[in-house]
Amino acid sequence: MLVEVLPSAGSPWIPLLTDKIAVVIDVFRATSTMVTALANGCLAIIPVLTTEEAIERRVTEPGSLLGGERKALRIEGFDLGNSPFEYSPEKVGGKKVIMTTTNGTRAIQAVAGARHIFIASFLNVESIAHAIYRHIEVQKDIEGVVIICSGSEDRFDIPDTLCAGMLIEALGKETQVNDLGRAAQMLYNMTKADLLETLKQTEHGRLLLSLGFDKDLVYCSTSNILPIVPVLDNGEIIWKTDC
Amino acid sequence: MLVEVLPSAGSPWIPLLTDKIAVVIDVFRATSTMVTALANGCLAIIPVLTTEEAIERRVTEPGSLLGGERKALRIEGFDLGNSPFEYSPEKVGGKKVIMTTTNGTRAIQAVAGARHIFIASFLNVESIAHAIYRHIEVQKDIEGVVIICSGSEDRFDIPDTLCAGMLIEALGKETQVNDLGRAAQMLYNMTKADLLETLKQTEHGRLLLSLGFDKDLVYCSTSNILPIVPVLDNGEIIWKTDC
Repeated sequence: MLVEVLPSAGSPWIPLLTDKIAVVIDVFRATSTMVTALANGCLAIIPVLTTEEAIERRVTEPGSLLGGERKALRIEGFDLGNSPFEYSPEKVGGKKVIMTTTNGTRAIQAVAGARHIFIASFLNVESIAHAIYRHIEVQKDIEGVVIICSGSEDRFDIPDTLCAGMLIEALGKETQVNDLGRAAQMLYNMTKADLLETLKQTEHGRLLLSLGFDKDLVYCSTSNILPIVPVLDNGEIIWKTDC
Repeated sequence: MLVEVLPSAGSPWIPLLTDKIAVVIDVFRATSTMVTALANGCLAIIPVLTTEEAIERRVTEPGSLLGGERKALRIEGFDLGNSPFEYSPEKVGGKKVIMTTTNGTRAIQAVAGARHIFIASFLNVESIAHAIYRHIEVQKDIEGVVIICSGSEDRFDIPDTLCAGMLIEALGKETQVNDLGRAAQMLYNMTKADLLETLKQTEHGRLLLSLGFDKDLVYCSTSNILPIVPVLDNGEIIWKTDC
């Protein structure tokens, strides 16, 4: 199985996705927050690109919440920011969240043409690896997997790359990878013994610490605590239990 | 000193370059070939983006040669391909070469706005590090260094990233790096004991081997054999001995 990794939401090179599974990663914090929200009973996340689009969309989704960030902070007038701790069962249980973030929702948009789109973070890597195998077993014409790291404002980002490396490791030895996939695996294996310390020293890690989001950083760096497989389905990210 | 690394010629994010030194790397093979050509007495390399531009430019540069590749092979009607072994003293001595390659010349274009533009490869990393220090010592307002990896058709590429890592290591401990710079350092330190073997297993390395360019691969993977500092000066890459 061919596994290709792309470095950022604005990656200039995107392979043909029609017969591929795409996996979107935005460790700090969009995909970690989405996974958490669904685990906490959120009905669906509707990813949109702009603040305006989010506000417009709410008109057709009565009862939904607005969530997301710009420069890591909650957007004015929005119900929720981008911290997983805001997406508690009390807040998001039984509701949909319309969400826009700087990198994560753009990365989702970039791979919208894929056969299947999964949302991954450290929190649910293992479950995503299993879901990929289950899909490939049943759909023999799936040609491979494309992992898109959301990155940080179109830049390569170590946290997402390490998560991609962890996913590739979880997919096992029979994967072929592109150069970035191989680099991701090497970097993950090199740092896995002290992932949290490595993540704290990254650009995005330092930004979160400087804004007081220490708890978010620690939580988003935790591996495989939520057995959730979020899937983009008709423009909404939902938890498909049969995935 | 801030050192930022960009992953490919098509990087969607390019920082403000006015007061920065840009370093262009295309290990396989454009910048390795340029460094070699200048060491062999070539007067200047004129980098252009397209085949048509190259042919047009020759009209105003009588006596010059046309060099470059598409899909790693010599362009029809051109005097030279992209192999450093073609740029011998007999062929390029005392002449200018108008050159177009898939990634390298595009990366040069992408950082054309920088204060200084250096051309690096494994062959001359150490000399580039020294040149950077000499420039920074004299020009106190230089704000940092941007290393652009040419990559492979807009994709992240391990060979260029390892060369960037080697350059950052050569720049010493006082550098601050972006995430890709840090990843490049980690990957370089992890593989430096067997660089050639690592490079053979990369996407571009395998392509060169499949086309019979084994000798090119070995040569371009050799460190610090040419003390050359090629500089882009008025649209021409020349060897400035005072750099």
